Amino acid sequence: MKNEVVTLAQGAGGKQTSQLIHEVFAKHFSNPEFTADDAAVLSLGDGKIAMSTDGFIVSPFEFKGGNIGKLSICGTVNDLACMGAKPEYLTCAFVIEEGFPIAKLEEIVTSMEETAKKVGVRIVAGDTKVAGKGQVDKIFITTTGVGRLTPGVNTSGALARPGDCVIVTGDIGRHGCTILLERENLGIEADVTSDCAPLWDAVEAVLSATHDVHVIRDATRGGVGTVLYEIAEESNVGITLDAKNIPVEGAVEGVCGMLGLDPLYLANEGTMVIVAPESEKDKILEALRKIDHTKKAAVIGTVSSDMPKKVVVTTEIGAKSMIPEPGGELLPRIC
Amino acid sequence: MKNEVVTLAQGAGGKQTSQLIHEVFAKHFSNPEFTADDAAVLSLGDGKIAMSTDGFIVSPFEFKGGNIGKLSICGTVNDLACMGAKPEYLTCAFVIEEGFPIAKLEEIVTSMEETAKKVGVRIVAGDTKVAGKGQVDKIFITTTGVGRLTPGVNTSGALARPGDCVIVTGDIGRHGCTILLERENLGIEADVTSDCAPLWDAVEAVLSATHDVHVIRDATRGGVGTVLYEIAEESNVGITLDAKNIPVEGAVEGVCGMLGLDPLYLANEGTMVIVAPESEKDKILEALRKIDHTKKAAVIGTVSSDMPKKVVVTTEIGAKSMIPEPGGELLPRIC
Repeated sequence: MKNEVVTLAQGAGGKQTSQLIHEVFAKHFSNPEFTADDAAVLSLGDGKIAMSTDGFIVSPFEFKGGNIGKLSICGTVNDLACMGAKPEYLTCAFVIEEGFPIAKLEEIVTSMEETAKKVGVRIVAGDTKVAGKGQVDKIFITTTGVGRLTPGVNTSGALARPGDCVIVTGDIGRHGCTILLERENLGIEADVTSDCAPLWDAVEAVLSATHDVHVIRDATRGGVGTVLYEIAEESNVGITLDAKNIPVEGAVEGVCGMLGLDPLYLANEGTMVIVAPESEKDKILEALRKIDHTKKAAVIGTVSSDMPKKVVVTTEIGAKSMIPEPGGELLPRIC
Repeated sequence: MKNEVVTLAQGAGGKQTSQLIHEVFAKHFSNPEFTADDAAVLSLGDGKIAMSTDGFIVSPFEFKGGNIGKLSICGTVNDLACMGAKPEYLTCAFVIEEGFPIAKLEEIVTSMEETAKKVGVRIVAGDTKVAGKGQVDKIFITTTGVGRLTPGVNTSGALARPGDCVIVTGDIGRHGCTILLERENLGIEADVTSDCAPLWDAVEAVLSATHDVHVIRDATRGGVGTVLYEIAEESNVGITLDAKNIPVEGAVEGVCGMLGLDPLYLANEGTMVIVAPESEKDKILEALRKIDHTKKAAVIGTVSSDMPKKVVVTTEIGAKSMIPEPGGELLPRIC
């Protein structure tokens, strides 16, 4: 690799992260079950299970709409949900800085408990390590989950087909915007709350309405733009977005306008992209809109065979432009 | 809790770690599958699986006999093995400090690959986060594993019975001694190599010889002494050790003598304690001694109903003394 040291960009979820994964990890860990999707699909005994892991190092560890504990449960639950797997069991491993307040730890653990109960997933094993002062920044949590695959459901980033519609399950960019405002001293006053939420109930509702869904992916690090580029790449299709249909909260739009950011590249922690045949669109939207957290679900684009591996956006005056390919350092320690 | 902040002692694997787990984690995460053993036993579909997670923050990340990558595979493989579960799938989550050399990362990943291949476990999913300089000390890895339980095997720290024999699978204290020598500037020259190794082959050999095994536990943080106290406590039994039968390498004994340390409390990363009925002793020793890594296996003591929850040691001149209860800060960041 040209870079001789690990860079923040390699942790940002974009192109450099993929490069690191392919050139270092995948090269050595390659096996039939090694996954590029949100969770691996495994045979164990008689059944098929999904398994996923995620490390959380978000800074600050508390933010409007959640904390690192809630986030650590949502992140892994949502990765399983995106494979159509009902989250069953979670493990969690903590690395805590010496001197971290026990009262804060208890708040974090309480959020984990509440979020796990809401989903119906059980935390079954854990590990605790303490590092000396200055050896870890406050608290990191890694969660790993296993779940049962919904029979008859087969989703993957490689399954988008020309003619499919592209749905987002809510307004975009809130988690990234929240962390940005809490961390950087930007002097911007804006009322933005992270979308951090578990999404299994939404996925379950969609899969109860139809099994004919091609891709479900949560738009975390790198945002909706990065996920769409991944899908375009893996499925070898083009994606065209309709700018006016992309739901963005006014406050998020305002912050993005001031800072020259695109909400398409801000992280979400409770918002998914769903790609499905046009025929299933109404059933999926109806199912999502019955659930409080996904009631703003909207169709934002279509899949075509034109311009494979590219994502373009049509503006309100009808102009078409390619959205930038993800990459570079977006905002480190967003999750 | 009396401590208002997290302390290094709470990460040392002794009494304070248990206290933190009970008073903060177990209180909130309590459910029928939440485990005090090395891995949780779970129902998933038609079968039973074991699941375990472990975070690795060892410093230095390279040491004689291994590195954090090898250790991260061994640690989780061994936790599954100790439940009598064949390790099937692993996930790994990395937190890497900005500026970490890619060449070192590749060495670590290569060790993980080699160790996983040796065991026959597949790495199926991963996650990579990068933290800024000074926000994490070089590299932390969390691995999580699932495995299939060997039918008919039922081991737990609570199953030791009076009359059982206590076996260690090799000479003790090498991992802790190695890290101590590499990290502290003690001016001691000693040729000690970590025992870091995967133990599934040893467990498989034992279980092929007999299913009548009560406890299998790897003696990591806190060493053999801490594990024996855990077993004595959970099974409500007393344990008597015979000092002359405890295998300790000369170099480890020498270092311990100079520093006033007890090898019983030094960490191991490839050495287990096995408690089984006296009738199974010879079969178990024979199975272990056929495997290179466990050929120094020895019976070191017996279980009785006397002095429940205590561990005593008989010295060569016949004196009996209680070994100290584990606790306090042993050596942070040993694993």
